Amino acid sequence: MTTVGILGGGQLARMLALAGAPLGLRFLVMDNVADACAGQFAPMVVGDYRDEAALAEFASRVDVATFDFENVPAESARWLASRIDVFPNPHALAIAQDRLAEKTRFRELDIPVPAFAAVDTLDGLRAAVESIGTPCILKTRRLGYDGKGQFRIRQASDVDDAWAALGAQASKVGLILEAFVNFERELSVVAVRGRDGQFRAWPLTENWHVDGVLSASLAPASVQPRMRDEAVDYARRLAESLDYVGVFALELFCRGDNLLANELAPRVHNSGHWTIEGSETSQFENHLRAVLGLPLGDTRMVGRACMLNWVGELPDARAVLHESGGHWHDYGKAPRAGRKVGHATVRADDDGALAETLVRVGAALNRSAQVEPVVARLTSR
Amino acid sequence: MTTVGILGGGQLARMLALAGAPLGLRFLVMDNVADACAGQFAPMVVGDYRDEAALAEFASRVDVATFDFENVPAESARWLASRIDVFPNPHALAIAQDRLAEKTRFRELDIPVPAFAAVDTLDGLRAAVESIGTPCILKTRRLGYDGKGQFRIRQASDVDDAWAALGAQASKVGLILEAFVNFERELSVVAVRGRDGQFRAWPLTENWHVDGVLSASLAPASVQPRMRDEAVDYARRLAESLDYVGVFALELFCRGDNLLANELAPRVHNSGHWTIEGSETSQFENHLRAVLGLPLGDTRMVGRACMLNWVGELPDARAVLHESGGHWHDYGKAPRAGRKVGHATVRADDDGALAETLVRVGAALNRSAQVEPVVARLTSR
Ligand SMILES: Nc1ncnc2c1ncn2[C@@H]1O[C@H](COP(=O)(O)OP(=O)(O)OP(=O)(O)O)[C@@H](O)[C@H]1O
Ligand SMILES: Nc1ncnc2c1ncn2[C@@H]1O[C@H](COP(=O)(O)OP(=O)(O)OP(=O)(O)O)[C@@H](O)[C@H]1O
Repeated sequence: MTTVGILGGGQLARMLALAGAPLGLRFLVMDNVADACAGQFAPMVVGDYRDEAALAEFASRVDVATFDFENVPAESARWLASRIDVFPNPHALAIAQDRLAEKTRFRELDIPVPAFAAVDTLDGLRAAVESIGTPCILKTRRLGYDGKGQFRIRQASDVDDAWAALGAQASKVGLILEAFVNFERELSVVAVRGRDGQFRAWPLTENWHVDGVLSASLAPASVQPRMRDEAVDYARRLAESLDYVGVFALELFCRGDNLLANELAPRVHNSGHWTIEGSETSQFENHLRAVLGLPLGDTRMVGRACMLNWVGELPDARAVLHESGGHWHDYGKAPRAGRKVGHATVRADDDGALAETLVRVGAALNRSAQVEPVVARLTSR
Repeated sequence: MTTVGILGGGQLARMLALAGAPLGLRFLVMDNVADACAGQFAPMVVGDYRDEAALAEFASRVDVATFDFENVPAESARWLASRIDVFPNPHALAIAQDRLAEKTRFRELDIPVPAFAAVDTLDGLRAAVESIGTPCILKTRRLGYDGKGQFRIRQASDVDDAWAALGAQASKVGLILEAFVNFERELSVVAVRGRDGQFRAWPLTENWHVDGVLSASLAPASVQPRMRDEAVDYARRLAESLDYVGVFALELFCRGDNLLANELAPRVHNSGHWTIEGSETSQFENHLRAVLGLPLGDTRMVGRACMLNWVGELPDARAVLHESGGHWHDYGKAPRAGRKVGHATVRADDDGALAETLVRVGAALNRSAQVEPVVARLTSR
């Protein structure tokens, strides 16, 4: 009997536990809040990730550890890794936690990135804006998520406002300035690498964000084979260079024929939720297979899939459950503004059927704006 | 927040809980043993189904109750149903628990059945064997499962042995004598009926038993449309006559163009496990949707699927996980002779690919005999 420990007890941990049960796995989730939603289906240790006693208890009860939450302190991950197997390894986690280290790694691997520069002081910010040009985005190096910790600089005169908003973070989590990419599309590669180095990627996904939060994903994305191969190759190079084990997502901006890497999410990813119904093997199951050294599952799609994120509160499930390819995911969380509380996946055999279903779902839920860009893509490609 | 109570905490309850989590459901499982495998993913009440205090606690903590175990005493089901919603209803459960009542109902509904007769005494058995002829099977009316509580009578002179084996049960659970059906195939219809009377069936499944225990299932079964429609019609008539709500299986013997009903399983069924990967909606999810009054999900297949049961102990998962369409289900149970401890489902796009995969899996696991009849069917149809 193998027990998998998961640091962080949100919906990702919950979906990992549900996917791992058929593999005969048990789970133990650690979170700093007692009502974390994964706790509805797995036992929990409640404690701060920096609390060594809690970590020690967690370590003593699991065979291997992984993450639901990418911002677990790197020291805690290292402390654990000196006692038990931890995947992905703490070094890969540390790099993915730091936008500067991450983008530096991308560049070293010849993975194209937007221009960027580290920022420590207001003068440094001015100089960086000068050299990168406007528009650009000032971001915290660490602890950002769902677009938080970002300030858009449209013109040089915004520099003071940007510093007022984020300057205090410079000494805490560091800052980075990035060129603003006038992208046409956002894509992600969700991929998995096994303990033995075996690598597999799911078909590319196109993603739409609203207010910095993922709103919808469509798979497969319509991209030329050359671009798909390039994206998958970036993901593979990255995983190999980090000796990464498990599932991860590489987020990319796409403009014309060019891809630019935005960030690496060192965990199962929201843009891969469609794999539960839309692929032979879900990202959750493959993450566990990788972490346990089991053969990786096939990442091929079964039809087409669109995922719609529910943020803040859940709409009425019936509108989705009425649809032949409609699947519902309620994370068992209390509603709260900005919180990811669930998602739906709509699966269909072809683009036309998928678009029709999305139009009906959007209308029934009064969320036509959410489905609109996906429908537009489906009907134009 | 809705909590579903499940009486019985085996693999069916476990798979129900895993399927219900994405619907935002919570579960409470009641079982008389504390280490029931559903307890690994759902909270439990441990107690005898006849213990009113335990039942009262269970009832107070759930919104609706259903069954993993069909032999929950009918009185306990009725006691519960006077307090909370219980699906399927206790009357349907009581009929399905009693082979005599069940077969009588089949006959009333013009669903063909093998000849049968109630047996109370040794003289009654002699008379029944006389009228039904040999070969025939003496079975307990209630509490049989996986072929237990059965005695095959090959010739009239076996009657004394049959009575020696089962006669003591006559006054306890009753006996029934059935004509032995020299069937060519065993089929099952797994179907679901909603609270509103909506009815859906999955494609017919062909089943192979070894020592009275299900060994393999193949879906879709190759049957003429007329026969499929007939089987589904039997299932529908039965469900309507019982005002059945939830998933059930109707087991059928097939000989030439004729179908004979064997039994009704008033719950999700082993021959429907392939629906987890092989259908748009699994039997587990649809059972919960039915019980909760939600729209039923599509029962269409995605490709073809074969389920292999693991009885006694689990073979090595890797041989299955290596296959593109290979899916593993470990129920988290300790090995024990005759115990269902897990299953595998192999999914493929066509018969040829499915047969090839099964041959490889059978060879790798040293279980060629288990896959052989399925492969023979696939390559001959
Ligand atoms: N350099 C950029 N140019 C244009 N848009 C950007 C840039 N950086 C971020 N964005 C937009 O903001 C979104 C969130 O940014 P980013 O992925 O860096 O932040 P995050 O907080 O880590 O978000 P998440 O964790 O959801 O991916 C991006 O998906 C993109 O839509
Ligand atoms: N009348 C019959 N003629 C021929 N074979 C029979 C007959 N009844 C039972 N069998 C064989 O025995 C198997 C188990 O019988 P049955 O379904 O009645 O018992 P059970 O204990 O309820 O099993 P389960 O719960 O697994 O369905 C059948 O699937 C069939 O292979």
